[in-house]
Formats: sequence, C-alpha cells, structure tokens
Amino acid sequence: MSSMFNSLLLPDLRQMLEENDAAGLREFCEILHPAGVAEVLQDLSSADVWKVLSHCGLVRQVEIFEHLSLTRQVELVDLIGRDRLSKIIEEMSPDDRADLLNRLEPARVEALLPLVAQAERADIRKLLSYPEHSAGSIMTTEYASLPVNITVREAIDRLRQQAPNSETIYYVYILDADRHLQGLTTLRQLILARPDTKLVDLVNRDVIAVRVDDDQEVVAQQLGRYDFIAIPVIDNQNRLVGIITHDDVLDIIQEEAEEDVLRAGAVEPFEDGYLETPLRTIAWKRGVWLVFLSLMALVTAWIIDRFEYVSEQYVWMGAFLPLVLASGGNTGSQSATLVIRLMALGKPGRGEKMRLTWREVVVGLMLGGFLAAIDFVFIRFWFGRTWTESFVVSATVGGVVLLGSLWGTLLPLIFRKLGMDPALMSNPLIAAFMDMMGVLLYYSIALTLLGTVAG
Amino acid sequence: MSSMFNSLLLPDLRQMLEENDAAGLREFCEILHPAGVAEVLQDLSSADVWKVLSHCGLVRQVEIFEHLSLTRQVELVDLIGRDRLSKIIEEMSPDDRADLLNRLEPARVEALLPLVAQAERADIRKLLSYPEHSAGSIMTTEYASLPVNITVREAIDRLRQQAPNSETIYYVYILDADRHLQGLTTLRQLILARPDTKLVDLVNRDVIAVRVDDDQEVVAQQLGRYDFIAIPVIDNQNRLVGIITHDDVLDIIQEEAEEDVLRAGAVEPFEDGYLETPLRTIAWKRGVWLVFLSLMALVTAWIIDRFEYVSEQYVWMGAFLPLVLASGGNTGSQSATLVIRLMALGKPGRGEKMRLTWREVVVGLMLGGFLAAIDFVFIRFWFGRTWTESFVVSATVGGVVLLGSLWGTLLPLIFRKLGMDPALMSNPLIAAFMDMMGVLLYYSIALTLLGTVAG
Repeated sequence: MSSMFNSLLLPDLRQMLEENDAAGLREFCEILHPAGVAEVLQDLSSADVWKVLSHCGLVRQVEIFEHLSLTRQVELVDLIGRDRLSKIIEEMSPDDRADLLNRLEPARVEALLPLVAQAERADIRKLLSYPEHSAGSIMTTEYASLPVNITVREAIDRLRQQAPNSETIYYVYILDADRHLQGLTTLRQLILARPDTKLVDLVNRDVIAVRVDDDQEVVAQQLGRYDFIAIPVIDNQNRLVGIITHDDVLDIIQEEAEEDVLRAGAVEPFEDGYLETPLRTIAWKRGVWLVFLSLMALVTAWIIDRFEYVSEQYVWMGAFLPLVLASGGNTGSQSATLVIRLMALGKPGRGEKMRLTWREVVVGLMLGGFLAAIDFVFIRFWFGRTWTESFVVSATVGGVVLLGSLWGTLLPLIFRKLGMDPALMSNPLIAAFMDMMGVLLYYSIALTLLGTVAG
Repeated sequence: MSSMFNSLLLPDLRQMLEENDAAGLREFCEILHPAGVAEVLQDLSSADVWKVLSHCGLVRQVEIFEHLSLTRQVELVDLIGRDRLSKIIEEMSPDDRADLLNRLEPARVEALLPLVAQAERADIRKLLSYPEHSAGSIMTTEYASLPVNITVREAIDRLRQQAPNSETIYYVYILDADRHLQGLTTLRQLILARPDTKLVDLVNRDVIAVRVDDDQEVVAQQLGRYDFIAIPVIDNQNRLVGIITHDDVLDIIQEEAEEDVLRAGAVEPFEDGYLETPLRTIAWKRGVWLVFLSLMALVTAWIIDRFEYVSEQYVWMGAFLPLVLASGGNTGSQSATLVIRLMALGKPGRGEKMRLTWREVVVGLMLGGFLAAIDFVFIRFWFGRTWTESFVVSATVGGVVLLGSLWGTLLPLIFRKLGMDPALMSNPLIAAFMDMMGVLLYYSIALTLLGTVAG
C-alpha cells in the first residue's frame, strides 16, 4: 500500500536517481527510519533500489535491506556483487539472514558461505538446520547474557560491550558456565538497583522459555500471554540457544491469521502480497480448490440424478433446492469457523471437545427450529405451496441446519485428529459437503411425505 | 484452554481453598508469574477466585486481576467490597482500568469514582471519553518523559524516580514545557552514552507517533512496521497524551484477525471466548446472519419459480443447479477473501483498485475456462447429456466463475466506499448473492440455446 508519505518523496527520489545525485541519495537513506526508507523504495524497480542503497554505508544499507520484502531481497541478491553481498549477509541479524538464505537455491547459499566470516558461517548453518515454523527457525542468536556471580555495576558494564551484538539488552539472560539458562533480569531492574547489589539477588528464577523445536504458534501464545519483549529459546539440555523478540511474534501472528482467513475462503496461502504475486500462482492456488469443490458438486449432481423420478413429479421442489443447500452450508461454515478459531487459540481437551459438540447441537436445534418456522411461513403464504409441501421444505431446512452445526464441528476436529490443519476445512468445503447431505435429506423427506406415483 | 500446568496445580489449589490455608494461598499468588496465576484461576468460580486473591497484597492482587478476562473482572467487581475495589481501581494501569470501567454500567462507575483519588479520577474520565477502538481508548498515560536540557546522568536519575509509574522506561519521550513531543531516546542509548553527554545530542527528532483519534488498526500498522516497543500518542496540538505498548498491539491484532475470520464465516464477533459465551448470545450472533441469508435464498427460489416452464421441460437441469451455484459462490468467496485481506493491510489507492479488479477479471477468465472444460467432459461423458446440454451447463459455470471473481472484488470495495466494514461481505453472503446471479444466467443460457416448446 502506498502511503501519502511515499507519494511525496517518490518524485524527488526519482529525480535524484536520474541526476545520479550521490549526496542526495545518501542523505535520503540516512534521514528517515530504515523502515520508512524501505517503504518508499518498494515502488522502485530492484535495479533502482540497489542504485539507491549503494550510496549508503554498510550498517544503514543492511538496516534498510532487512525491512524490504523477502521477494525483493531475493531479487536484489542477483544484482549485488558477491563481495558486497557476503558483507551484507555477515552484518544481517541472524534471524532475518536465515529467512533470506532459506529462500535462495541451496547451491547459491553454498557458493556464498565461503565468503562469510567463519563465526557467522557456523551460526548460519545452525539456524538453517531448524525445520520451518519451529522456534529455532525464527529465533536470533544475538542476545545479551551474564554470569550470576557479578554485581549490578559489572553487569551494566558488560551489557555496554554486548549491546552492538544484541537485538535487545532490555532482557538479560543469566547463564552458568555451560550456557544453561539459570534466570532472567531486565535492564529496568538493573537501573533501579544499587550498583553494588549482587546480580544473584535480582535474578528471577521462574523463567518462561520455549524449546527450539516448539512450533511458532506456541511461541506466539507464550509471549502473548506474558507480555514479554522477548522469550528465550532453549535446547533439550536447557541451554540457551537464542531469543525471539516481540516484533517477530507480531509477524508470526499476522502470518497465521492471514493463513486462516485465506483458507476459510478456499485460497491456499501464498508467500507475498496479492499484488506482487504472479497471476498464474494465484490461479493455481485457487484452481486446485475449485476443481476439488467442482468434483464434489458433480457427485451432488449424480445424487440428484438418481432422484430424477422424484424431480420429474415435483418440479416445484427445484426452486427451493438453493435454500435448502444454503441453509446447511451457512450453518456448517459458522460452526467450522468457531471450532477452527477455538483450536487456533489452543488445543482443546477431551472434555472441551464434548462440551463444544454438545453446545453446537443445542445451537443447531435452536437455529434449525427458528429458520424452519420462518421458511414455512414464506413458502406456504408467499409461494402458495400446500401445507405438506411447505412442511417438506422447512423440515429439510431444520434438518440440514442441525446437521450443518454437527458436521461443521466434527469435520475440523477429525481433520486435526488426522494430523491435518483444521483450517483446511474451508467454508466452501463445508458447504460442498453439506450440499451432498442436503439433497439426500431433501429427497428422502419428500419421498416419505409425498410418496411417488407408482412407476 | 487448560494447559498441563493448570491440571497439575488446580487440585492443590482447591485443597488449600477448602482448608482455608491462608499462607498457602498467599504463596501460590506470589510464586508464579501473575499471568500464570490468572490462567490457573480461570477454572475456578468467581467467588473462589476472589477468595484466593484476598490473601495477597494489593500490588500483586492487581497484577493478577489485570490478567483475568474482562468478563471475569466484571463478575469480581460485584464480589469485592467498595473500599477495596476503589484501591484496586486506583492501582490498575490506566489502559486496563479504562477497559474494565467501559464494561460496567455508567451509574456503577459514577458511584465508584468518588472513592478513587482525585488525580486518578481526572485520568479515568479523560480515558473514558475517547471513542472505542481509537488510539486514545487503548493508550496508557503512564509513560516516562524528560526535558531536553539535562545530561544523561540526570536523565537516568529521573528515570529511576519515574519507573514505578511508567509502563516502560525503555522508550523515553522528550517534551518541552508545554508537553509538546520533541523527540525520543531509549534506555539503551542512555546506557551506552557517557554520563556527562547532553541529552540534546542523543535525541532522535524523527519520532513516529499516532494521533489520539486514529483507529487502532493504524496503531497496529505503524508499530508493526517499525518494530517499536511502544508508540507515542499525541493530540491535535502535538502534545504527548499517552503511549501504546507492543503487548496491547498484539492483543489488537489478534482481536482484529478474530473478527475477520468470524465475519468470513458469517458469525458476528462476540466479546469473550466461545465456551464462555452464553448459548443464546451465540444463537443470536449467528441467527441474524442466517435469517438474512435465508431471505436471499427465498428470492433465489422466487427467480427459479418464474422459470418453472423451463424447469418442467428440462428437469435434468436441476441436477446441475448445485454445481453452477457452487462454482459462482466459491470463486466469489475467494476473490472477496483476497480483497478484504488486502484492505485489512492498508487502504488501496485508486490505481491499486483498478489493478486489483483487472487481475481478478483475468484470473476469473482463466479459472472459468478451465472449470468449464472439466465440467463439460464430465457432463457429456459421465452423465451422458447431449453436446448442447453439456455446453449449457459448462458455459454457465464459466460465466458464473467470471462473475464471481468480478463481484467478489467489487462488493467489498463498494461496502468500504459506503463506510461499512468490507469484512461484512462474508463468504456465505457472497455465495447467496452469486446464487441469484447463477440461476438467472443458467436459465437465460438454457432458453437461448435450447428454446422452449411453444406454450
């Protein structure tokens, strides 16, 4: 999205580029917050972006680079000379660096690594080895840590030295000689304490941490619950291996919400913004779903076809088919949405699942009865169908609403049980499933109440 | 969601309550992080929660109280004596306090306020006056601020004094005598600077702030973009009136995502967790939508009824009605989901809206052509309909997919233009709208290609 900010700066920037105004371009890079610079740059071609960035110093260059979208970063990698690129990669924060390298071809990464300093190289290989969406894959290794047997004065002195290589110095982790996590203190506590206080008297021993192989959802839940600025990541031996900061958790939460919303609309999530994604990718991410849903609709067609002898006799029934199917689909979408959301916030226990299903059955009965009554009145008095005909339609509506509530609850639970993402149970998928149930119920009730002419 | 943590502690806690073990209950309150205590307490009745809390000191009591859900806080208010309650309200952080008081009856609040200290009372009235979802309604007034004409040594001394009444001292705002926001410095910068450095040499003048009447979405976007721990809130005269911290923004983002997901599934958002919300509230939040969608389906039924002479002659058409309608509804849901998501991330400009619509038309053509081809093959060769009949169905599918793409894009944009939340354009609502379009197109194409027997 372009802000007003952009539209004001962009023309000036374009002119500076045309005139090759080195001083102006350097000033542009340094006067704004790096995130602001990155936002303005997004409207330029990658070649122009690099032309701008090449005018500023390495540290600022990297700060801006880290705020660009991943797709843009990947494009820039092709434009930047290998020597400069290895410097940029060395300077990047470990978590952003791992995200970028994960997006490059493995061969490419192997070609780059020898140019990167030895210490950074080990760190890169380590971070690249964690599975996607694990705490390890999103953490940074640049944290502030202290031994426990020093005073507050010494602690603050050491923090000053660590600051340039720490993503935050507001949370300080207390480690023993083997890097086991012993406790936590904050810069706030250090500032408030007397300089000769012993660190051991300040430390909070009750540290909330996540494990390196925990899913990013767990990280988001923990940090969100405790309102931390950062959360420590430990390995199986309780050794501190990294931290995840609040801003990265914000990104995770947005990413997960994005995924849930897209899946609810039967779109497979994709990595970049909608307007930056090629049309064929979008068509593919949607087409897969549409074809699958079409096949389900063809099965529904086949079921209706089996009942052709009923349709022929009661042609009027066709008019209310969309009403019947929509009622089931809509209630099913609602229930599935509520259940999926509930599961996104935490894993429900057995008791909660039972309670949930029971609640949905009760709500289904309430809603089904209510809708059936409304529809009955309309069908009898607006459409002028007979009492029995009106009853066939409204009884089916009541039935599919109850079934929709029940299946909308059970299907995501079953998906989860099978180890699949319950959010795959999109609104259109539930609707397609309920279409099948709906036609079966509609014709069964009609056959029972209206009967058929002897063939 | 109950965690393992809870199930381990809960039995002990229940026993302590039964035995009235004052020392044990006090220890329980103080040994865990307040958020942890609050989590365990959520499984107790409100009377028991207050029984536990009454055993600990005011400061800890308030810390735990603030971590309870708002519904629970409101229930507790009825159980706590007026004197204690006024102490708790005085001690609460201004933003959490405003959230609670906003949930109480106005008469109740007026009865409580006289018991609260004068200074707090003015602050409360001020915060309660901001409209819901505005920056003012979520900010806290407890920030750290300094004048510019002092040294770093003095600055740190003053911060020590302000710490007890500041939500964070990591970001420090520089104000002139009239509280105009002049700049920002961080505790990190202060720690790294020499003690006799003048503050004026450290200050960042380029401060990103939000206005007190900005929507909370703007706050979330700005803080998220710049990775801040807190963002300052200013009034129309550029005076600092509060700050919003990263943890509150996390809550906002989760709340907004929740709303979007629920709306996509045609459920009106509600304030508490699903399992805590009364069944009649849930039935109401869903029933409103279902009735509205039913009325739309009845209009669709009326349209089909107008075409009864066609249905009577071509009874086979009924079997493919669900396929035709689903194709339009599914594509419409996909497009609407993408557009609504795009708008949630920022306000698209005119050019972007045009580009978006154009992209959706192209994707609609691609998907429509592809699905029409697949359906044609199935209908001709599996169902054995004639070439013309198969063409009628598949041409309709192609048409509704294109229309679904187009209307799925335009309807949320129109909603926004009318000042309504585009997320109201739920998947079922789009589907209901596309049902009407779908039947019209289906019968029109059939009439054109197949003709009718002269009545």
